Formats: sequence, structure tokens, C-alpha cells
Amino acid sequence: MFPGLVEVETPALLIREEVALRNIERFQRHCDDNGLKLRPHVKTHKCVHFARAQVAAGATGIACQKIGEAEVMADGGIDDILIAYNILGDGKLGRLRSLGERTKALSVVADNDVVVDGLSKAFETASRPLSVLVECDTGGRRCGVQTPERAVALAKRISTLPGIGFGGLMTYPAIGGQRDVLNFMTLAKVGIEECGIACSEVSSGGSPDMWHARSHGGTITEYRAGTYVFNDRSLVERATCAWEDCASRIVATVVSVPSEGRAIIDAGSKILTTDLIGLEGFGHVVGHPRARIAGLNEEHGIIRCGPGDRFEVGDQVNIVPNHICVVTNMLDNAWLERKAGGMSVLTIDARGKLC
Amino acid sequence: MFPGLVEVETPALLIREEVALRNIERFQRHCDDNGLKLRPHVKTHKCVHFARAQVAAGATGIACQKIGEAEVMADGGIDDILIAYNILGDGKLGRLRSLGERTKALSVVADNDVVVDGLSKAFETASRPLSVLVECDTGGRRCGVQTPERAVALAKRISTLPGIGFGGLMTYPAIGGQRDVLNFMTLAKVGIEECGIACSEVSSGGSPDMWHARSHGGTITEYRAGTYVFNDRSLVERATCAWEDCASRIVATVVSVPSEGRAIIDAGSKILTTDLIGLEGFGHVVGHPRARIAGLNEEHGIIRCGPGDRFEVGDQVNIVPNHICVVTNMLDNAWLERKAGGMSVLTIDARGKLC
Repeated sequence: MFPGLVEVETPALLIREEVALRNIERFQRHCDDNGLKLRPHVKTHKCVHFARAQVAAGATGIACQKIGEAEVMADGGIDDILIAYNILGDGKLGRLRSLGERTKALSVVADNDVVVDGLSKAFETASRPLSVLVECDTGGRRCGVQTPERAVALAKRISTLPGIGFGGLMTYPAIGGQRDVLNFMTLAKVGIEECGIACSEVSSGGSPDMWHARSHGGTITEYRAGTYVFNDRSLVERATCAWEDCASRIVATVVSVPSEGRAIIDAGSKILTTDLIGLEGFGHVVGHPRARIAGLNEEHGIIRCGPGDRFEVGDQVNIVPNHICVVTNMLDNAWLERKAGGMSVLTIDARGKLC
Repeated sequence: MFPGLVEVETPALLIREEVALRNIERFQRHCDDNGLKLRPHVKTHKCVHFARAQVAAGATGIACQKIGEAEVMADGGIDDILIAYNILGDGKLGRLRSLGERTKALSVVADNDVVVDGLSKAFETASRPLSVLVECDTGGRRCGVQTPERAVALAKRISTLPGIGFGGLMTYPAIGGQRDVLNFMTLAKVGIEECGIACSEVSSGGSPDMWHARSHGGTITEYRAGTYVFNDRSLVERATCAWEDCASRIVATVVSVPSEGRAIIDAGSKILTTDLIGLEGFGHVVGHPRARIAGLNEEHGIIRCGPGDRFEVGDQVNIVPNHICVVTNMLDNAWLERKAGGMSVLTIDARGKLC
């Protein structure tokens, strides 16, 4: 598991570079073949290393949620960034403006007038307008304008205010909601263009439905996916990928076998997280498909053994996490099993960038 | 909320020092009055600042789970540390030995022969024996020997091996399991003493039952509690404390009100965490007792409004988290509202110390 290393202190996150690079290339090819620009969401890896690999493979740029993440990625040389978030407040707007001055292309989203007006005020004396996309709620029930009519109205407001320019439409769809995306976005785009406003980008996304992503005759121009780079148990369970496409493993040690059928590992919620993401159990124990990580405390994982499972104190186990994006946020570093061979420390550059 | 500060970028964690210090003093008094040494578990705050305050108030030392946490606390001048964990592996045992050389009192726990033998081997040439307590499973169903007889056997093994000394008994009880603790520990202690081995410490713990903690005629000598320093929604719901005893608040901003009855805040699972700890909803919105944080993504919290709740884009909300221990692990820094007035940055020194 850890060639060239005598011992790794556990719990630890291990990333297999070869698998990650294969995932990057495979989905880039899918997007290329289906007339889509790919804008990977860096929230999964949070690493400059993999953001660069995604851009090198053909990605148009990256997406992130927070200015702090974008700052880290800009420091790493990524110069086309979408921050897919409503940004508010003087401090953040000031940082956003600075970021705009040192990137080639910076865009954000907005779903309400307060945010749009704040962006305009912050950028009205900037050397270059900020691109603002209208976020649309096409069924995800999170942020987003609720109707195509509201999207048109907000696009008009953006295109008339100083300092900002209308950059297109963006949505974070419900899983399986591709038809709703197309319906909403087509109506909004037509409405906006009828007002004489160009709608150059329509950005959709989501790893669970990634293999169904296509441009639909040019309506959808861009796709944002994050998890596909490493994949995880949730995507295997949805049949989006196979176990061998999962690039990450949590390596843990059995520290106690207090009674028959129960083994305690040193990976708890501080690395696996309590994110069930709709699944049963807190991860997949590689080689023990019937073992169940039945409970977690911060520093303990409680494995309920399956038939035939035998764990001994000191055994190492490998776990495919339920949801990899939240795992990388727990750690300052991971181990990278290099494609070229050997191991190195992978810094998770944008970990904990909450603001 | 933030006196002396124009703006705090959200989401952020705010700690009210006056409340935390009052919590520290109040439970120290309870332990003093009930014949117990108090050994606070630093997993809740992870801060040298509050560990020092606990020791200054009369705590006998601290407890932690990981060597990395203990190292940080030793760096901060805390010199009596229990690491309440089975420690395995050459790397960790080497670090443990180094730690033993620079602390006044270091102890660990063990519940099996493999761990005990490893500790003995690592410390056999040390200048001072390592104190090892036997962890007992008194109903918590995590780690621990399963019977008092096994506790006796392990105590005997510890007391005969070089480099280590038997330090007593330790348990992490089930909530409400104080009677089971007393039964198990009394039997184990008597059995150990019948073998001519002194059993000087019997350590129990848990914030939920903290107000029932007492020495029971000297059988229980020490109590470990963590959450009491800040308290949280889970302890309010169990009636262990009141809302005004909660020292922590997550400060978030409403970034979108996409439809009636739904408000989106910028605090998601990267600060609130998905730890429900048996509750409904992901935190208590102060001043909005019927609002429910119904869903979380990494960067979004979805509030379902209660009757009469009106949220506007740009509003700040304050949230008492379900489980504060996992929240501090998400952040490198918090804001400290000083008892003496003013605000300062509180470094969460031991954040992310997984190993």
C-alpha cells in the first residue's frame, strides 16, 4: 500500500495519482466529445497540484465556492476562476476585487438584487468589469432564482449596472434533474436574448450525472464536476464509477478488538466525517464488503464485522470514504502515491478556507 | 455581537470567554465538593489558552486522545497529560517516549496485550516508567476490556513488564451508565488489589452526566469531561446546561432567500458539521427557536423558517452548534470575546492533530 515507506502513522488519506489522472482524462474526453467546456470544481481535491492537472488536460478553468479557495488557486497559477457563490460584505468584496486584478478571467454568481448591487458597487472603479452569472434553482432547492422570468430580470439588472457584466446562467441541479435544467435554462436564455443581452455561458454540473452531460444543441456550454477526480463510495453506489476508479483510501489501524464481531479503528469522524450522504455506514472497508462501519466518535470507528471477517489489533485497513470532498477538508496533508512511482506529501492547499 | 469590530467575515466561530471561564469554575467546584480530581478533556477546545485556564482553576491535568494533541499541549506548558487511547506503531511509540521525557506526568490507556507489550518495549530503556491505565468497557461499547477479570489480568501483565507501571482503571461510560461504572470498577479494583497491586486511580467521565459525578466513597478518583467548557445544543437538550451556558456561537450570513420559508446561510458542513448527535436539524438558530437548519452542503446551510421568521439577504444569524467538539476541529482560528472586553483571535492549537 505504501511502497518505499516503512510506516505511515494512521489515520491517513492516501491518493493514487494514476487513478486520479485517469479520471481527469476520461471525463475531459467525455466533455470534449459532447461539445462541453469542463470547469472542474476544486472542492473535492482542494489542491493546486490537481487543479493544474485538470487545466493541463483541457479544462477551461476551475470552479470554487469561496474567495479563500480562489485566492489559493490563483496563487498556484490558475487564472480562470468561477466562484459559484453569492458574495456579500465589504471585506469579501474587497478581496474579490483584488483577485479580479490578478486573474485572467474571474466570475461569480448571484441570485438576488442585494448581491448584484454590492458587486456593482465594489467593481465600479475596477479596471475591468466582473462577470456575474445568474444562479438558477432548477430543482436543487438550494440557492437560485425560482423562475426563468426572475433570471431575465436579474440579467437585465446586471447588464445595466456599472462595474459588472452579465456572464450567463448557472445551476447546481438536483440529481437526475437534467431535463429540468434544460427546460429552465432554455426559457431563461431565450428571454434574456429577447432583451438584446447576449447569454454566452450556460453552466450546469454535478458528478452523479456526469456521464449524461451534453450540450443539448449548444444550450448547455459548460459542465462543473468535482467528485469525479477521486470518486467515492457514493458514486460507486450510484453506478457512476467502479471501485477501481476510486483514487482515495483512508488508511486506518485496528487499535482494539474488544469483543467478537466488533473492531475499533483509529479513523473516526475527524477523518471519515459523519457525512452519510444517504448511505448506510461510514465508509467501505476494502476487502471486507460485509463489514460495516457502524458508528463513529471523533477518534474511533466502530466496525461491525461481517461473516468471516477477522480483524487483529495492529491490522491496517483501507477505507473508501462515503464522500471524499468533506474528507479532504479535514486534513492539511495527504499521501500521494505518484504515478511515476514513490510516495510524496500532498498539501491540501485550500483546506479550511471557509470565507 | 462583535464589539470593537466593524465586520467579521462569516462563517466564523465566536467563543465567549466569560461563559467558558464560568463553566470551568462551576464544574471544578462540583468536583472539589464531591471528592473528585478533574481532568478536563481538551478535545472540545483544543486550545492551550483554555487548557491553562482549566489547570489554573484546579484541574489535576488534562486528557486528550492523540499524541499530536498532547505534544501541542506540552508545548503550551501543560505537564500532566493522560492520552486516553491505545497507542500502536513504532512512529507513535517513539513520539510517546519523547513526550514522556518532557512532561511531569504522562499516562496512557490500554485494553489489550498487543498494546501493552508495545508500550513496554518502547519504554524499557526510558528514564522513568510510563503509567498505563486499563481501559474498561462499562457499557459504552467502544474500546475497553469486557470484564473485571480481564481488567485484573491486564493489570497484572502491566505491573510485571519492564518500562511501564500500572496506573489504574479508566472508562468512557455510556450516558446514564454511572451505576454500571461503579459495579465494574469496584470489582476490578478489588480483584487487582487482591493481587497485591495498588490501584491508585479510577477515572470516569462524560459531560452529559457530569453533575452526577461523585467519588462513591473513594472508588472513583477522577472525572474527565470535555464539552462542559463550552457546552452545546446536545447538552441543553439533555438539560445538562442552559442556553446561557453555551459559550460558542457560529456566526453566519444569510446569502439567499430564494423562496418563502427558505433561507440559505453561508455556514455549511465545513463549519457546522453533519454531526446530528441524535438531534433534529444541524444547530439552534438563536432568537429563532422554530427555525430549523434542515440541510447542509459543504458551504450552504438551508434554513426552513418557523412561523413568523423573516430572514433578509445580508442578515447575520448566530447558531449554537449541535456538538461543539467537532466544530473546533474544522477551524484554525476562532474569535474570542474576552472577559476583560474586546475581541482577539483564538488559535485552535490542536486542530487536525489526527495522529
